[in-house]
Parts: sequence; structure tokens; C-alpha cells
Amino acid sequence: MAVYTEISDEDLDGLLAQYDIGQALSCKGIAEGVENSNYLLHTETNFYILTLYEKRVSKEDLPFFLGLMQHLASSGFMSPKPIRAKNGEFLQEVANRPAAIIEFLDGRSVKRASPQHCGLVGSALAQLHTAGSDFKLSRKNTLSIESWRPLFDGCKSGNPVELTSQLLSEIEGELQYLEANWPSDLPSGVIHADLFPDNIFFLNDAVSGVIDYYFACNDFFAFDLAICLNAWCFETDGSFNITKARKLLNGYRSIRPFSKEELSFLPLLCRGASIRFFLTRLYDWLNQVDGALVKPKDPFEYLKKSQFHRLVETVSAYGLD
Amino acid sequence: MAVYTEISDEDLDGLLAQYDIGQALSCKGIAEGVENSNYLLHTETNFYILTLYEKRVSKEDLPFFLGLMQHLASSGFMSPKPIRAKNGEFLQEVANRPAAIIEFLDGRSVKRASPQHCGLVGSALAQLHTAGSDFKLSRKNTLSIESWRPLFDGCKSGNPVELTSQLLSEIEGELQYLEANWPSDLPSGVIHADLFPDNIFFLNDAVSGVIDYYFACNDFFAFDLAICLNAWCFETDGSFNITKARKLLNGYRSIRPFSKEELSFLPLLCRGASIRFFLTRLYDWLNQVDGALVKPKDPFEYLKKSQFHRLVETVSAYGLD
Repeated sequence: MAVYTEISDEDLDGLLAQYDIGQALSCKGIAEGVENSNYLLHTETNFYILTLYEKRVSKEDLPFFLGLMQHLASSGFMSPKPIRAKNGEFLQEVANRPAAIIEFLDGRSVKRASPQHCGLVGSALAQLHTAGSDFKLSRKNTLSIESWRPLFDGCKSGNPVELTSQLLSEIEGELQYLEANWPSDLPSGVIHADLFPDNIFFLNDAVSGVIDYYFACNDFFAFDLAICLNAWCFETDGSFNITKARKLLNGYRSIRPFSKEELSFLPLLCRGASIRFFLTRLYDWLNQVDGALVKPKDPFEYLKKSQFHRLVETVSAYGLD
Repeated sequence: MAVYTEISDEDLDGLLAQYDIGQALSCKGIAEGVENSNYLLHTETNFYILTLYEKRVSKEDLPFFLGLMQHLASSGFMSPKPIRAKNGEFLQEVANRPAAIIEFLDGRSVKRASPQHCGLVGSALAQLHTAGSDFKLSRKNTLSIESWRPLFDGCKSGNPVELTSQLLSEIEGELQYLEANWPSDLPSGVIHADLFPDNIFFLNDAVSGVIDYYFACNDFFAFDLAICLNAWCFETDGSFNITKARKLLNGYRSIRPFSKEELSFLPLLCRGASIRFFLTRLYDWLNQVDGALVKPKDPFEYLKKSQFHRLVETVSAYGLD
């Protein structure tokens, strides 16, 4: 949860004067998103989400993120639409921060996903990949394999705690393996890159919304699938639920079939996706800000996922024949 | 800000099955209230506030608080209406906590109140006192003068920091003075007892909502006025704004005239109101919970207010003739 920035009445009125959506009737900070400040905004015309972008989101990337949301929504995908200001732009400024007003989507995220939910997530992911294929802008994945070693180096020094030599050598070995074997050419395009349960809304047994595009980028489609397998198919006790994985993968390929290469690289991509989240969580965990409102997520959950995937030889471990 | 309790989908569906307001379309934690968990709930019929009562609110008091909101709203006062479940009760249970669903009111709280806002606050307070006069239930003020000495004793021991002997003797002296001079008989009834800027919504230059009745109780009306003078009429630099005070008091008496006794006791009641908030804030500040999401409020702001009122002799210092 996060609300970092307070907006004064004058600032809010000034912001809404840039739009054609009426005056603000109410504006409440909501516990959604950890990188930005989010408000539920009620105006004379409708309910909206007002997002203020805090420093972890690079301002240069905002046209990509907002343009992507608009592109996906107009392709019929269940992304919320950003609202254009009178000057035609999605991006405005309030309280010295870039800000956007975004359509409010109904639906609820699930705390405990069922296999049925996982099937819906798989097909939503494939729909996103398909709908994003003719999006004109592109953005490099700043958290892909090239970033992991610098991130690891950043975790090794200047911390209040020392990482054990066993942990250091485990990660070093895994990084070397990934760097030596990472594929160079798999089907690619716009991926969500952060499709965790918080970021999908369900309503009446269907996906009603996919939100939070602030890690979206261009990378292998199958890497997005690996991120989802990690996010959706492990139980809280660390066990891997093969039924959920089969549902997720079958949901995906009912919309976009995978190539043989994508399938054979999937275990490796899952190892990579585990290390990516392990390292960013480890970094945040080692660099906790005093008084921050957000409790860092457990990095070791992702080390265990990495260990699971290292034992996987073929996608049959993920429930596919 | 606070969202303490997560509600599972099953729990939320189970809760809504007790009501006639349709199924949940969305439910988002909001940064409002510090004692309870609050959600903005969208159902098939409307938007509502769902409140889960955490341990700082005593369950036995909930029928008073919710009954008061209902009573005030049906008297035409701008309190949100609690929604009755199918069994006729306001109070239900979810996630092992007492819970209520309450009407969503538009409006925005002000960060920087103008004298005009203060006038509106004064008349809203008098309207509340008037509308509450025929409410059948009553509740003792558990934070009135009898509670201050035990609260002070609780602040004196068992803390990581030591209070200076100067501070201890200042508070001891003030408590003795208040105990010796506190009035025993002034016009009384239901008071809000916590009418801070967060708890009033404005819309189109009028008060659109008065929320958060979880300190409401029976006490002197003029004590509520003293709480409001403290909450609304000091600037952030600690100076007292006599224009705001005059507007607030005149707004009040345009609806409910004060007696001569109420006016002559007002400086003393303001001293008491200052000590009440100083002591509860000091206690919270000394007993900060590690990892709490709420930053304790500064107690010394209220010590300075206490010092200001000690120099006041008559209500002319508050802008009245």
C-alpha cells in the first residue's frame, strides 16, 4: 500500500481544469500500487484513478506506459483507458509530479487463486501479447538478464548485514549458468512483466481488468509466462501446483500457441524470472527505508522458486505433455 | 492512513449476502481513519464505505456510534447513513471483526482551512449538538478529565525515553489546576469530540459530510467547541488565528446560542482540550509500535496550544466581544 503525496485542493482543482471530466467531488488515497501514489477520484462525470508518479518511475517511460494502456484498451483488451487532457496529452503535472487520470475498472483481485483463475490469467496474458503486437513504441527491459549481475553486485556491499558465502556462491553459479544459456532469439514483443495477483481484477468468473503497466517492456513473450508461473502457481508453503500451471499454460496457448523453442526454454526462463525477482527483492530488503510505509517482500520466496526450477528438465514438470 | 485487515473474496461475498445492496464489484482499501480499516466498496447498487473495527474501538460502543450516525442522518444532519443488513442490524462481522457498511458521501476535506471554512465548521458543530439532543443512547466520555491523570501516569513510566522534570511539573501543575476548576454543570449532550479537518467534507462552499463518530460521547457542548478551536484555529507556525476563531464561534451561535457560563468557562475548556490531546498523543508517541503504518502525531503541538490558552482571560482573546 502506498500514498506518498498529499494533494491540496488548489492543486486538484488546477489539475481538473486541464480536463473535460467535471469538478472533483471527492478524492481518497487508496492502498494500491507500491511505486506510485493512487487516489480514487470522483468527479461530476465518473469515478477515476488518479496516479501521481513517484521517483521510482522514470518520467521518460511514461509515454510508453500510458500509450500502451490506450493501445491495449482500444484493441479490446481489458486495460484501463488513460484520460486525455484538453491539450490531447495523457500526462499532466500536479504537486510537482507527473500525473495521469485513468479509467476506474470494476473487479477484485484474488488473494487465493484457483486453477480456474490461473487459466484466465494465461489467456489474458496471451491476449495482452497479441493486442500489443502492433503497438508502435518500444521499451527495453531494464530488469532483464543484463541487469542481474550489477543488481547482485549492489547487494553484495554496503549493507548492514552480510550475505553468507553459501548464498553468494549459489547466486554466482546460477548467474553464470543463466548468462551462458540465455536464449538470444525467441518470439518477442510487449510484455507486462509484473502480472502478479494484485494486478488482475476478476468479475463474474472473467478477467475484468489488467492494471499496473509500469514494468511493461519489450522482451520474450515466454519470459512473461515464466513470471506468471512463478507468481500464480506456487502455494504459500512453497510447493508448486502443477494443476494451476497446466491451466495457465493451456489458457495461454488457447489464444497464442507457443513455439517448440519457447517450450524448451521455459524452465530456463523460469529460473531467470526467479532470479530477477529474488535480486530486486533482496536489494529492497537490504535497503529498507526507515519509516517507509511498504514492508519489503520476502526475497527468499524467490530463491526457493529458483531452486525448484533448477530441478526441472522439461515442461512436463509444468503439466504439459 | 490505515488498512490493517485484508478481506478475502469469500469473506466479502459472505458479508454482502447479509445485505440487500447487490454483489461486490470492487473493494479497495482507502487511506482514511487511523483506528479502523476502511474500504471503498462498489456494489451493483452503489458506492459505500466498509469499515472493519480494529481493537482500539470497543465493540460495546458500536451500537452507540452507528445508532448516532443513523439518528443524525435522519434528522437531516450530514452524517453518512449506516446500512441495515437483512436482519435489521447495522453491525455484522467479517474477518473476525465487527464491520459496518456506511453510505459514501462526496466532498473533500481541506488541508488549509480558511476563516470561511471555520464558520461552516462552527455551524455544523451546533447542528450536530442540536440534532443529537433527542438521541436515546448515551456514552460516557472516556477521554474526559477523569482519564487525564491515569493517562499521565501511564506516560511517566516504562518508556524508552525520560520526560524532563520541567515537563512533568508543567503537566502536573496544569492537571491540578484543571481538576480544581473544571465546571460541574454546563449544557451537555452528544458531542463529536474529534472534529478535526480530516473529519469534515466540503463541497460547493458548504459542509457535505461529517464523519468518524468513534469518539462521540456525552459531555459539555462547549468542550466540543474547545476541541474545534484547537483543531481549526491555530496556524502551522503555532500562532492563534483570531479571525478563524471568531468565525467558528459566530457560526456556532448562529444555530445554537451559548450561555454566559459556557462563554466564561471556554478558556478553561480549551486548556482541558489541549491537555486531552497532548496526553493521548504523548502516550501514542511513547508507545509507538514497530512497523505501524501510522506515524504518531506530534504531542508538543498541543502543549503549545495549552500554553496559549493559559494566558487567555476572557473570550475576547477568541474574537468575541
